Amino acid sequence: MKKVVLAFSGGLDTSYCALYLKEKMNLEVHSVFVDTGGWTPEELVTLEKHAYNLGVSTHKTLSQAQQFYDDCIKYLIAGNILRNNSYPLSVSAERMFQALAVAEYAQKIDAAYVAHGSTGAGNDQVRFDLAFRIVCPELSILSPIRAQNLSREEELNFLQDKGVQFSKDQALYSINKGLWGTSVGGKETLSSDLFLPDSAFPTQVTKQGSEQLDIEFEKGEPVSFAGKEFTHPRFLIEALHQYTAPYGIGRDLHVGDTIIGIKGRVGFEAPAPHLLIRAHHALEKHVLTKEQLALKEQLSAKYGAMIHEGLFLEPALRDIEKFLESSQQMVSGTVKVFLAPYRFHITGIQSKHDLMSPQFAQYGELNRSWSGDDVKGFSKILGNQQMIYRKVNQNA
Amino acid sequence: MKKVVLAFSGGLDTSYCALYLKEKMNLEVHSVFVDTGGWTPEELVTLEKHAYNLGVSTHKTLSQAQQFYDDCIKYLIAGNILRNNSYPLSVSAERMFQALAVAEYAQKIDAAYVAHGSTGAGNDQVRFDLAFRIVCPELSILSPIRAQNLSREEELNFLQDKGVQFSKDQALYSINKGLWGTSVGGKETLSSDLFLPDSAFPTQVTKQGSEQLDIEFEKGEPVSFAGKEFTHPRFLIEALHQYTAPYGIGRDLHVGDTIIGIKGRVGFEAPAPHLLIRAHHALEKHVLTKEQLALKEQLSAKYGAMIHEGLFLEPALRDIEKFLESSQQMVSGTVKVFLAPYRFHITGIQSKHDLMSPQFAQYGELNRSWSGDDVKGFSKILGNQQMIYRKVNQNA
Amino acid sequence: MKKVVLAFSGGLDTSYCALYLKEKMNLEVHSVFVDTGGWTPEELVTLEKHAYNLGVSTHKTLSQAQQFYDDCIKYLIAGNILRNNSYPLSVSAERMFQALAVAEYAQKIDAAYVAHGSTGAGNDQVRFDLAFRIVCPELSILSPIRAQNLSREEELNFLQDKGVQFSKDQALYSINKGLWGTSVGGKETLSSDLFLPDSAFPTQVTKQGSEQLDIEFEKGEPVSFAGKEFTHPRFLIEALHQYTAPYGIGRDLHVGDTIIGIKGRVGFEAPAPHLLIRAHHALEKHVLTKEQLALKEQLSAKYGAMIHEGLFLEPALRDIEKFLESSQQMVSGTVKVFLAPYRFHITGIQSKHDLMSPQFAQYGELNRSWSGDDVKGFSKILGNQQMIYRKVNQNA
Amino acid sequence: MKKVVLAFSGGLDTSYCALYLKEKMNLEVHSVFVDTGGWTPEELVTLEKHAYNLGVSTHKTLSQAQQFYDDCIKYLIAGNILRNNSYPLSVSAERMFQALAVAEYAQKIDAAYVAHGSTGAGNDQVRFDLAFRIVCPELSILSPIRAQNLSREEELNFLQDKGVQFSKDQALYSINKGLWGTSVGGKETLSSDLFLPDSAFPTQVTKQGSEQLDIEFEKGEPVSFAGKEFTHPRFLIEALHQYTAPYGIGRDLHVGDTIIGIKGRVGFEAPAPHLLIRAHHALEKHVLTKEQLALKEQLSAKYGAMIHEGLFLEPALRDIEKFLESSQQMVSGTVKVFLAPYRFHITGIQSKHDLMSPQFAQYGELNRSWSGDDVKGFSKILGNQQMIYRKVNQNA
Repeated sequence: MKKVVLAFSGGLDTSYCALYLKEKMNLEVHSVFVDTGGWTPEELVTLEKHAYNLGVSTHKTLSQAQQFYDDCIKYLIAGNILRNNSYPLSVSAERMFQALAVAEYAQKIDAAYVAHGSTGAGNDQVRFDLAFRIVCPELSILSPIRAQNLSREEELNFLQDKGVQFSKDQALYSINKGLWGTSVGGKETLSSDLFLPDSAFPTQVTKQGSEQLDIEFEKGEPVSFAGKEFTHPRFLIEALHQYTAPYGIGRDLHVGDTIIGIKGRVGFEAPAPHLLIRAHHALEKHVLTKEQLALKEQLSAKYGAMIHEGLFLEPALRDIEKFLESSQQMVSGTVKVFLAPYRFHITGIQSKHDLMSPQFAQYGELNRSWSGDDVKGFSKILGNQQMIYRKVNQNA
Repeated sequence: MKKVVLAFSGGLDTSYCALYLKEKMNLEVHSVFVDTGGWTPEELVTLEKHAYNLGVSTHKTLSQAQQFYDDCIKYLIAGNILRNNSYPLSVSAERMFQALAVAEYAQKIDAAYVAHGSTGAGNDQVRFDLAFRIVCPELSILSPIRAQNLSREEELNFLQDKGVQFSKDQALYSINKGLWGTSVGGKETLSSDLFLPDSAFPTQVTKQGSEQLDIEFEKGEPVSFAGKEFTHPRFLIEALHQYTAPYGIGRDLHVGDTIIGIKGRVGFEAPAPHLLIRAHHALEKHVLTKEQLALKEQLSAKYGAMIHEGLFLEPALRDIEKFLESSQQMVSGTVKVFLAPYRFHITGIQSKHDLMSPQFAQYGELNRSWSGDDVKGFSKILGNQQMIYRKVNQNA
Repeated sequence: MKKVVLAFSGGLDTSYCALYLKEKMNLEVHSVFVDTGGWTPEELVTLEKHAYNLGVSTHKTLSQAQQFYDDCIKYLIAGNILRNNSYPLSVSAERMFQALAVAEYAQKIDAAYVAHGSTGAGNDQVRFDLAFRIVCPELSILSPIRAQNLSREEELNFLQDKGVQFSKDQALYSINKGLWGTSVGGKETLSSDLFLPDSAFPTQVTKQGSEQLDIEFEKGEPVSFAGKEFTHPRFLIEALHQYTAPYGIGRDLHVGDTIIGIKGRVGFEAPAPHLLIRAHHALEKHVLTKEQLALKEQLSAKYGAMIHEGLFLEPALRDIEKFLESSQQMVSGTVKVFLAPYRFHITGIQSKHDLMSPQFAQYGELNRSWSGDDVKGFSKILGNQQMIYRKVNQNA
Repeated sequence: MKKVVLAFSGGLDTSYCALYLKEKMNLEVHSVFVDTGGWTPEELVTLEKHAYNLGVSTHKTLSQAQQFYDDCIKYLIAGNILRNNSYPLSVSAERMFQALAVAEYAQKIDAAYVAHGSTGAGNDQVRFDLAFRIVCPELSILSPIRAQNLSREEELNFLQDKGVQFSKDQALYSINKGLWGTSVGGKETLSSDLFLPDSAFPTQVTKQGSEQLDIEFEKGEPVSFAGKEFTHPRFLIEALHQYTAPYGIGRDLHVGDTIIGIKGRVGFEAPAPHLLIRAHHALEKHVLTKEQLALKEQLSAKYGAMIHEGLFLEPALRDIEKFLESSQQMVSGTVKVFLAPYRFHITGIQSKHDLMSPQFAQYGELNRSWSGDDVKGFSKILGNQQMIYRKVNQNA
């Protein structure tokens, strides 16, 4: 019997796949769940039981949260990557990372097939396909839901026929939890003009009033908030989420271009990514030069786009990461954030690398290291080409 | 007696200049006020009186609000230009525009000098210098405040000595009102870590509750909001400011690089620019292609930077404007905005050019115009180079 | 009987297709040849006869040379587009243009199918697929050679069996002639380390000695060379090719990335594109500003890449074209070129828009419009941020 | 007596400065010559004698050739940096490097002044000013030639009056030799339309016939040519210059924008830079991905521009260098070059990292790792957005 490794989430689609691959395709099914953060040991045990219940030969949990941060989130923060100025690539980055782990596992256990449960309308199918194609091109890809164009109804019926009880998901909204944000889909996201209701977001707004929060960065990485330090930034992210999500911040509805060329909308709740990126960017505005900021913006846009489109293995990303790493050497300091229900803003920063040094100039008043004539000369030379252009072409 | 044209705002610095140029430099002073929007006829009359009171030979008001929109703001909207993701270039754009009008006027009346009241620490000095250098290079530039490195105290004393009463400005915050936003400076903006208090902003938050607002665009330009149409977008901007400023939205504290290389912070209140740009961008995400959005972002960043740095006359900007104009052909439709105290978000859009057409795909479900195998082939080819790279270099 | 429109070149592949579509698929075959320049009336008649000989129902010649220049080559010149600094997109641009004309024709005559003869290894298949997919998505695409993975041997046998004599092409090199350059493939281009021999290029080097040639541009478009004017630039391009190809210039071997992710090499002979683009660029260096040159370079790289990859219909290209058009307003003047066997260089230019005006500065000597102190002030301010950065971080 | 450190080349301008600073300004003159390659010990001794003859207190030769390669040329090769597609930044890079060494020396010996001999019309003045401003802002900058706007005549007279014999330079062309190329200025470069005559170039064309040359790279750095290995790339560059300059290759006339806004032309002879960069780039086209090539191009253009404009100390350049370094990991292999009088071309490359692997595809024939249907699916999805755009907007 040939082996198939299935990227398994425990949801309806991948549950269907597990059963279908075994029963209809006579394959030895090895389910893999890639934990990229945010799951309790109990949840992982439940998931494993569910997998064996569906008849898989083995089930494996790959713990990748730390690596997910080290190899990816770190650079999303360094690059201040908010797609379309808002979406922190919550699902995009995570899914690719999971797909790669599955592909490597499939290769390791000498599977003949590798499978995913994506439908044919979204980005995830391409991310899985790409990861499988690049890492294990010798394996065939199976994607039963996409191949058969199944509806949820049909999947449920098949499972029931095979004696597997699957609690009909009554939720109006499909939720995808992850370390770097939670996505929310529903009937509003299928429209162009409706916003998600408050109730659609996983965390309800329970905090009132406002507060000041300090977030500390060391070479571009978050190391503490509200005075609490963490052994690894992934734990800081989890704790920051718990602490700030009840303010209802970091929510939005992202409109974007899918990899397959159609437009798509997705809601999300991502307080920690929003806070960390906005705070990190504020710090950078004080400690980096104008040129660094401008170049980082360009490269990060490219980096974010390629991550989004499943091109995590593109060698150019490794080059960009070296650039980003280099740019973070001075990005250390404390960022002060104001939090209130549904909103936050950056109050200011403190850093020994702050280039806004009162030693060099005072806003609106005297400066010390250059004279008015210096600036006059500066402007004169700076305007030279436009002055010449105007003269030459007035007479031309 | 030689003529000098003075860019005049009526504030302490330019009042000092008017008097100084006449009394100390024996020049025939021609003051010019460039109205780029937001001034009442009464205010303009008061200003004129004040100028003559200082002894100017002539005073001229140049009405440039319409042209300011047509030649500049239109493109700032088309380009979704928010510097550092927040600052709409409120003062930057306006000041340059005023400087150019003054330079052309100086040339027209055959002045020998052209003067501005900027200090030596900010951006405005360079904007004035540049405009004068490029448009009227044959004229000498006078900038008495900068040249003498004067303090406000010294300026007030000089005016008083000459018998001109100037109400000592007791305000803690220096405010610069303009069509495209109002800037706020104060002791907090001289620090790196403090935020402006609510009271520092010119408009106080008086609206409670929330509401939905529709903004309509036609080829990238705002034409109506809340059902009201306007004869020219400049009036829409003014009305939108009146309507939404009491929500306390569109405020922030911008940290940026000045043209002279130092960092600077400036607070601002710019509800209309923030709303219009965010709304416009949301519409674009639905009607433009991925490539258009990405290219626009790049070019707009460049456009914004050059406007900010006083390079409005750079011929490359004219080329970018043609690009932007072309990109706006389909940017028509209605944007729905949710307003509440201190925050707003885009609810959604409606447009006949919306590319998120249910005719082509349904989120999370079936698609109609391509098959699962098509996407599988797509992913395979898309991953080709990375697959080859991996193979070749694994064996190398 | 259902109609198929076949993009027809008269070569082995499309001859096979014509016969195959009729005989094996029972379709009514309508062959279309798109003339993008460089074909004599006699050649077109021969081609038509050949088509009817293969049994097509109708044969159509679409004359697109003028439009090819107006809609595409004009911008390739304006953008100085030489891919990888050498390849003028000779075939890339032309093929896309042909594919679009075929697609529109297919739609016009209500065909059910549209067909091309591309193999499965190159770029052309994607260009045809894309043009057909975008312009006539309701039509099915047939590509018999690719679908059956045929060898030339098999194609020849099929034709012979059906009584069609096809002179076995004995040429060692496959040549693709076009208005914007001729491509050359052979065993060397299949290797990474061999160059094409002189004999492989269609034009042999027969001119000796050297000469000076003047090329005149008007708003970025070539209007005359060696004193000869032309009614349309497409004729200038043809004449310039005739005149300069015997020098053996404009030849190279391009290594590039195909759309399908593999590397490919192709030789080419493109004296007119090389001369026109290098001359045009030299002129621009004198009449455009630094910012214009830098922005044009960026946008043109993007434009060239998209043209190469078959994305001619991408709306962003229309926006770039407006940018390019605007940038060409001052690009008028004469460029002097030195020609010799296998090489040429730009001697210099003459233009009334030349910004290198002796009125403003003299190389290595005195300047007139600014002083040494002005430059000193300029440098001081220009270096401000780096100076501050150094100071702050030395002490940090 | 206060100390001044003078950047000394031994030419007329700096000889004048040495004498002037001592005699007219009563300073203790410390002359520094920065050797960035290409000077014999004898030449250095002569230079030292000349300095002491002019009355300097001390003379110092700083040997920086190795560091010049390690800190700068290495990246110019990695980035394939040819400004305006031709000029290898010969003088630009070198001058900046010299200025920085002088600035650091001045700081080390506690000088009060630092001086350069640049005129007021070129780029070098800004490079010196910038290096001095950034590295030793507490020192005053003296630039006697620029300050006094002197002609060569006046300088010669002054020297003669002081009893210093200075052989009146009768050369028609001013030559600036350096490791990374030699620049040539003359009456032709002051015009827009004339080219330099053969005789103006320092090396005359003495090699006839043609030959094949192999250049080997290791991680982006040249390690051998024609089978000869070198202990450090700087020696390879010197030897390659000797070997290939007699072919008359690597010559051109560059038209560029100076830092001070005017256009300038400069001739150069730079066979080694041209060969190394073209060869390196050819190798990269085979071993890097499309995305790497495109990103490198963008970043390198920025890197080159900043080096050219004296911004070598900009921290963003350090970040770009890390990117470039990372991109060179696979850039190892041999490049075959064809040399003939006045021209060369790249024949091909050999590398174990070559992505143009016959294992994956064969030009014009069958491919093995994907099917025609895969490509068809690819094209379909790739064209999706343009297809939708067309449909939506046709009906709009």
